[in-house]
Amino acid sequence: MNKNKKLWGGRFAETTAHDAELFSASIQYDQRLYEQDIAGSIAHAKMLQKIGILNVEECERITAGLMQIREEIESGSFEFRTDREDIHMNIEARLTELIGAPGEKLHTARSRNDQVATDVRLYLRKQTDEIIKMIFALQRAFVKKACEYKNAVMPGFTHLQHAQPVLVAHHLLAYVNMLERDKQRYAECRTRIDVMPLGSCAFAGTPIPIDREYTANILGFSSVSQNSIDAVSDRDFIAEFLSVSAILGMHLSRLGEELVLWTSPEFAFVSLPDAYCTGSSIMPQKKNPDMAELVRGKTGRLYGNLISLLTLMKGLPLTYNRDLQEDKEPLFDTVDTVRGILSVCTGMLDRIVFNTSRLYSMADTAFILATEIADYLVMKGIPFRSCHEITGKIVAYCEKNKKTFQDLSLDEWKTFSPHFDSGIEDIVILEKSIQRKKSAGSTAPSEIERQLTYWESVMEVE
Amino acid sequence: MNKNKKLWGGRFAETTAHDAELFSASIQYDQRLYEQDIAGSIAHAKMLQKIGILNVEECERITAGLMQIREEIESGSFEFRTDREDIHMNIEARLTELIGAPGEKLHTARSRNDQVATDVRLYLRKQTDEIIKMIFALQRAFVKKACEYKNAVMPGFTHLQHAQPVLVAHHLLAYVNMLERDKQRYAECRTRIDVMPLGSCAFAGTPIPIDREYTANILGFSSVSQNSIDAVSDRDFIAEFLSVSAILGMHLSRLGEELVLWTSPEFAFVSLPDAYCTGSSIMPQKKNPDMAELVRGKTGRLYGNLISLLTLMKGLPLTYNRDLQEDKEPLFDTVDTVRGILSVCTGMLDRIVFNTSRLYSMADTAFILATEIADYLVMKGIPFRSCHEITGKIVAYCEKNKKTFQDLSLDEWKTFSPHFDSGIEDIVILEKSIQRKKSAGSTAPSEIERQLTYWESVMEVE
Amino acid sequence: MNKNKKLWGGRFAETTAHDAELFSASIQYDQRLYEQDIAGSIAHAKMLQKIGILNVEECERITAGLMQIREEIESGSFEFRTDREDIHMNIEARLTELIGAPGEKLHTARSRNDQVATDVRLYLRKQTDEIIKMIFALQRAFVKKACEYKNAVMPGFTHLQHAQPVLVAHHLLAYVNMLERDKQRYAECRTRIDVMPLGSCAFAGTPIPIDREYTANILGFSSVSQNSIDAVSDRDFIAEFLSVSAILGMHLSRLGEELVLWTSPEFAFVSLPDAYCTGSSIMPQKKNPDMAELVRGKTGRLYGNLISLLTLMKGLPLTYNRDLQEDKEPLFDTVDTVRGILSVCTGMLDRIVFNTSRLYSMADTAFILATEIADYLVMKGIPFRSCHEITGKIVAYCEKNKKTFQDLSLDEWKTFSPHFDSGIEDIVILEKSIQRKKSAGSTAPSEIERQLTYWESVMEVE
Amino acid sequence: MNKNKKLWGGRFAETTAHDAELFSASIQYDQRLYEQDIAGSIAHAKMLQKIGILNVEECERITAGLMQIREEIESGSFEFRTDREDIHMNIEARLTELIGAPGEKLHTARSRNDQVATDVRLYLRKQTDEIIKMIFALQRAFVKKACEYKNAVMPGFTHLQHAQPVLVAHHLLAYVNMLERDKQRYAECRTRIDVMPLGSCAFAGTPIPIDREYTANILGFSSVSQNSIDAVSDRDFIAEFLSVSAILGMHLSRLGEELVLWTSPEFAFVSLPDAYCTGSSIMPQKKNPDMAELVRGKTGRLYGNLISLLTLMKGLPLTYNRDLQEDKEPLFDTVDTVRGILSVCTGMLDRIVFNTSRLYSMADTAFILATEIADYLVMKGIPFRSCHEITGKIVAYCEKNKKTFQDLSLDEWKTFSPHFDSGIEDIVILEKSIQRKKSAGSTAPSEIERQLTYWESVMEVE
Repeated sequence: MNKNKKLWGGRFAETTAHDAELFSASIQYDQRLYEQDIAGSIAHAKMLQKIGILNVEECERITAGLMQIREEIESGSFEFRTDREDIHMNIEARLTELIGAPGEKLHTARSRNDQVATDVRLYLRKQTDEIIKMIFALQRAFVKKACEYKNAVMPGFTHLQHAQPVLVAHHLLAYVNMLERDKQRYAECRTRIDVMPLGSCAFAGTPIPIDREYTANILGFSSVSQNSIDAVSDRDFIAEFLSVSAILGMHLSRLGEELVLWTSPEFAFVSLPDAYCTGSSIMPQKKNPDMAELVRGKTGRLYGNLISLLTLMKGLPLTYNRDLQEDKEPLFDTVDTVRGILSVCTGMLDRIVFNTSRLYSMADTAFILATEIADYLVMKGIPFRSCHEITGKIVAYCEKNKKTFQDLSLDEWKTFSPHFDSGIEDIVILEKSIQRKKSAGSTAPSEIERQLTYWESVMEVE
Repeated sequence: MNKNKKLWGGRFAETTAHDAELFSASIQYDQRLYEQDIAGSIAHAKMLQKIGILNVEECERITAGLMQIREEIESGSFEFRTDREDIHMNIEARLTELIGAPGEKLHTARSRNDQVATDVRLYLRKQTDEIIKMIFALQRAFVKKACEYKNAVMPGFTHLQHAQPVLVAHHLLAYVNMLERDKQRYAECRTRIDVMPLGSCAFAGTPIPIDREYTANILGFSSVSQNSIDAVSDRDFIAEFLSVSAILGMHLSRLGEELVLWTSPEFAFVSLPDAYCTGSSIMPQKKNPDMAELVRGKTGRLYGNLISLLTLMKGLPLTYNRDLQEDKEPLFDTVDTVRGILSVCTGMLDRIVFNTSRLYSMADTAFILATEIADYLVMKGIPFRSCHEITGKIVAYCEKNKKTFQDLSLDEWKTFSPHFDSGIEDIVILEKSIQRKKSAGSTAPSEIERQLTYWESVMEVE
Repeated sequence: MNKNKKLWGGRFAETTAHDAELFSASIQYDQRLYEQDIAGSIAHAKMLQKIGILNVEECERITAGLMQIREEIESGSFEFRTDREDIHMNIEARLTELIGAPGEKLHTARSRNDQVATDVRLYLRKQTDEIIKMIFALQRAFVKKACEYKNAVMPGFTHLQHAQPVLVAHHLLAYVNMLERDKQRYAECRTRIDVMPLGSCAFAGTPIPIDREYTANILGFSSVSQNSIDAVSDRDFIAEFLSVSAILGMHLSRLGEELVLWTSPEFAFVSLPDAYCTGSSIMPQKKNPDMAELVRGKTGRLYGNLISLLTLMKGLPLTYNRDLQEDKEPLFDTVDTVRGILSVCTGMLDRIVFNTSRLYSMADTAFILATEIADYLVMKGIPFRSCHEITGKIVAYCEKNKKTFQDLSLDEWKTFSPHFDSGIEDIVILEKSIQRKKSAGSTAPSEIERQLTYWESVMEVE
Repeated sequence: MNKNKKLWGGRFAETTAHDAELFSASIQYDQRLYEQDIAGSIAHAKMLQKIGILNVEECERITAGLMQIREEIESGSFEFRTDREDIHMNIEARLTELIGAPGEKLHTARSRNDQVATDVRLYLRKQTDEIIKMIFALQRAFVKKACEYKNAVMPGFTHLQHAQPVLVAHHLLAYVNMLERDKQRYAECRTRIDVMPLGSCAFAGTPIPIDREYTANILGFSSVSQNSIDAVSDRDFIAEFLSVSAILGMHLSRLGEELVLWTSPEFAFVSLPDAYCTGSSIMPQKKNPDMAELVRGKTGRLYGNLISLLTLMKGLPLTYNRDLQEDKEPLFDTVDTVRGILSVCTGMLDRIVFNTSRLYSMADTAFILATEIADYLVMKGIPFRSCHEITGKIVAYCEKNKKTFQDLSLDEWKTFSPHFDSGIEDIVILEKSIQRKKSAGSTAPSEIERQLTYWESVMEVE
């Protein structure tokens, strides 16, 4: 057999150039779709039998052949051939080798255009489900840790400067909220993934009386595509998955950054499990937060993959163009990256140890309670802008005289405003400041308790 | 008054450097939020009155002052000052100029961190609603045009090569499907925009007994944020809006490309209204499809804006960082661009004229019906791969002998396969090929009719 | 005059739609090119006079008219009109208003295609020169500061963990090296900017016997483009400028990040001048490193602008397409951003104060000298891998026993290796460790001195 | 041996988690650097011998061991182990297995930080040289084809509308100019690649008296890095290579687009060799320009890789962070992609056939010579704007009366302007229009001849 003879080669006078073959082959990466390709082909064969294109025996031989191919692939004995271009042609050609003529009937009322779109959707539907589960696991790790450190206090930051004290749990639950939005977005994207293009054929449909609902039912698709031209041209579901993943990656890059900061000797807020750190090839004392750094760094590829796909789609006329083949590598890489990130984040969070005394002492320094003083004055009826200015002056005074708020006598307080009374002493106590918070969503212990209860109930249900 | 005196300047020994002031000012672009900032402040003041921080008179004076400022802005008499940094400080400072002390009470239990997030959400909720309406208008233009050309035939393309004939309406409805997904995504994004962060204050909440639900109700928010740290750090809703918009832009870049192709003299498929074309400063005969080109080109900025935002969020520790100020220009630019694109696309589509005879003649050439021949043989029981190969040989034979399919005698057909009979003559007639299509979503006239009926019913409802 | 009558309108039956006019107008941003457009037109007119298309009087009237327009623009009295689309048409139309017929001759042997490319190149050549000077100024600020802290020691970081002590000057000079590469790249890019496309006309050249070298000479271009099709299609010089700027922005985002880290209370390595910091609208004690944050955050727009331009160029057929109009806003924004970044970085660096005692004490902690111990053993002939392992065990021993290296007795040292002798005591002294460094480019004081001398000599020359 | 025992594991209490190991391993892709890693180690060993750290025998055994490893790798017998993380640790560990103690001395005065930077630079220097050669080959193919079609005429396009006729060679040489700039940029980037970081060690240098110039000399580096902190943190050379490659990819996406357009049945300007086209799995008549489409589509990954790298570098504090590991996959992918694109473009161009009669007839239609008429009037002394308007009216008249310019009688011409005389007849002849062009860089045959001669002389030299 002519090794270079293509299944589409009827009208061609010369064989494909070697560099062109390498340049255009996708088998090295799309072999990952073998499971979906085989499932899709089995469903398609069953439908072809139902409408009489295949007889029972042909359908059975095709099914058996495809299952054998699956075994060959999973056992490593299948030869993936670049001259057969892609996973679809590799499987079809092998099928015909195995079972002869019936294999040549399989591609009836089907094109690679609708076939590949179907395979990718099957693949991505499954991956999305698993990613949603992994996000859930990471949320659980955060909630568990938030419970563990329910009473721990840390300095809250804006601009990486101490701003106001908060509960560690409050900070951790912020991530649970971010991840919840991620989960929603994946779930919504999934509804647009879960649409079957198979039966659109090249893009115009077919005169063969196929039963698309029947096939969709076998493959578990919720619906079938309504316009065959759109169906083979559409890669929205990939673009959307990549952008949802870029946002997830962005969230966890923020976590990665915080873990890197918090493990630095200057911060010393947390320690990470050895199992998620590495050492140095040259500096024997090092314990590096490599996983956190990689979580942060891998955002780059998530963004890059999104731009790859968006760029390749830009300005493409309908319907199928070969450019679309380039959709798969960014997708596969993003799937792997997101899963990797979620896994190691869960691993790190599960066993992170917060240095609560360090956190407390950093929360209890400087002028982190200045806002509380301003708010105290507000409650005395002073306009906020004046409260802000008065407090600014107290800070300046303390800095100049190397005093803390706690060091100030009532007389000193009164030099800044006659409204200060002995109540001010309570105001500048860290725990009390946190307990005084009231507003919904705030760092008030009751609010954090409420949030924890809510998330725990969510966790139990799912 | 010291022109450089900042509202936060209490503890500062020197004024901001001039280059720093220019570098960090946002007033030149965030003044666009004036309406939302004022609405948010009025709602906030009402809530402060409800909980007793403001008395009735103070609240009324604040409201009146803010309404006067709105008038000043809308009449062009308001002086936006760079030394007052942003729209929030410009309005607050002006308010105090106008009404004195009560103005200084307005910023109670509020920080710019939650204020700006609230303003942007109010703005974006409104824009999203308008964009959804504009998408709907563009869909309507497509459907109207599809009805108009219900029976027109055109060559369908894959790889920009003639592939199979389709109905023009089929092609146009593909875009209606794409836009439908865009609309869904905007609507889903809107639910995540429509959450009120106000009351999160700097990020830790407040001891002042604010009533966030009350404010949310005034501002029409469906819910309030549940974690104040997340609320001031979160820019997901912008990232999501930008990615949803990038996908919309990608869709319309495909339309732009097709319009450019179709108006070229080589294609000559359509003509665009003069009102959406321009001429040349040097070549007097030119009529250029500039709007279509710009629709295609402006995809660049939609992608660029998305990358801007994702890059700036990457690796940011919680909570607020000044980097976040950079979220606004990409957002505003994307809003303007999407609206501009939708508007001109609707204008072009409304009055596009298809050259139906040209389309028909290009659909009726070469071997565009080859697939039909293969499908014919399939129905005779030949395995598809053989059908494909036989047809490939017929194409090669025709090319060599400069014949079309219609030129072939039955004897000639039979030299390729004994299964050909006189029925083949019908097969290679363009209209019949289209009418023979059966599958759901295909170019079969009955399917197109069904799709049109569906979309028309959708159009009526909304 | 019909307000909507376009200069190219001869063959058009209807006027441009209002939305299309807004969508396609560029006058709101390309008015920035007025100076270059006028300079280019004056040079073009002189050339037209030289070859006899204009007589002396016509050329003089054109020149005088253009200079008057320049004055009108600079004094703010010029009316920029959207219906005149762009800066070129605005100026030409105004010129004809002012001087009549000769104005109508100016666009001879010229198209907007070559005109706009020329204007942008003139603009960018000038901006590139200024940016190169600003980089130089920032390098100077770094070198000055490195001299000031020549003997200061700080902990060097890998993975944001303490790794080895270095001189502050060493760290600062790393940025001087980065900036040097930036300067090289801008200079090389400039040679590709400095090529004159004028005279390419629409893209095919002209039968009018123009003298391109003459015009180039007036405008100070080093060369003229060699292929007119390439000349009007080429935007490489913008893409390259944007990527060179993205890399510069990336460098300074690293500086921005370090300044943010270093000013945090946990690090407390430096303090920034008040003039480059801002306060909080709610928390009176805050002094935020806003400029450093914005330097970091603005990287987003530099990357976004690059992607905008690359996306819009992707897949554009030759020659000019209207898409190309979209090249200007990302370019202008990047120019402004780079200049802003360089200015505030120079301002911050000029007056940054390092907390040398804090830096010293953080450098003198933990096991930062572990590598020195390993290197000590290497010099005794022990294979490096064993040295590394032995030192690792010493670190573990010290951690367990809460000792520093300095606390260990010689006997303790010897339990880990018989090769330790009394020399080890010197090894674990911070200053000596730095002084012992020898390799070229290292933190050895002599190396730093050499680098400083080199850069100072460079600074003097330029 | 503990399979999970790391070379840096001295101080670690637990082994790396399995997911962390997979997440952080780079061996699956950085094994590509084996050749450079071995070359670098051999040079390093020779230097260590020169300065007395290794004796002659040790150095010889190391060298022999490394050469054996190279053979193992190239013969496929080398076992790459994920638990050994990367190519450096895999080779070093294997070396010690092979030769024992001397292997443990190799990593003296070296860190993975400077080692990997050196390896990548060696790799990229070689790839850059090969890419420059491949660009040259593609330029040669363009020039050859331009010579072949020296006299062929085609319609020149702006806005994808016919604008003015040009020579095919003129269009082809536009690409040679673009590629020339690409070549320059790669060559300039190469000077920044060709700097040796080895000897910077972790980032602080070393007390061991290494001789960096000696090592650089062996490895053929032009210079050594001057600041060790910069040297291990710097990835500019990769960012620059990726952006230079993105611009090259952009150029060739424009070629890809043109080839796709030109092979469409509507254009039918060229035919591509079968060897660079493929067929359809379903439509037997198809001959698709897949390679051209992929050249266009692969721009996406070139842009994506650039964004990946820029994103991961954004905001990284000095010196080495684990994020930097993520630099390699985008780099390797870009190298492969650029080489693939250049190869297939050269293959396509080499054997592309232009349909000269089709091109001529499309150039000879409609009003493509309108600009010539305007220029004719200019030479009669009419202001250009009037010429443009007059010609616009002639076009409108012809369109209305279904005439071409050639159909107009002199009387008809004169109704538009008294300046028309019999000379106008020559003006509207295609060939003469081209021959009349005069300006430098234009489509004038003499200019094209000049360009061809220039490029042929360049080709000969190199």
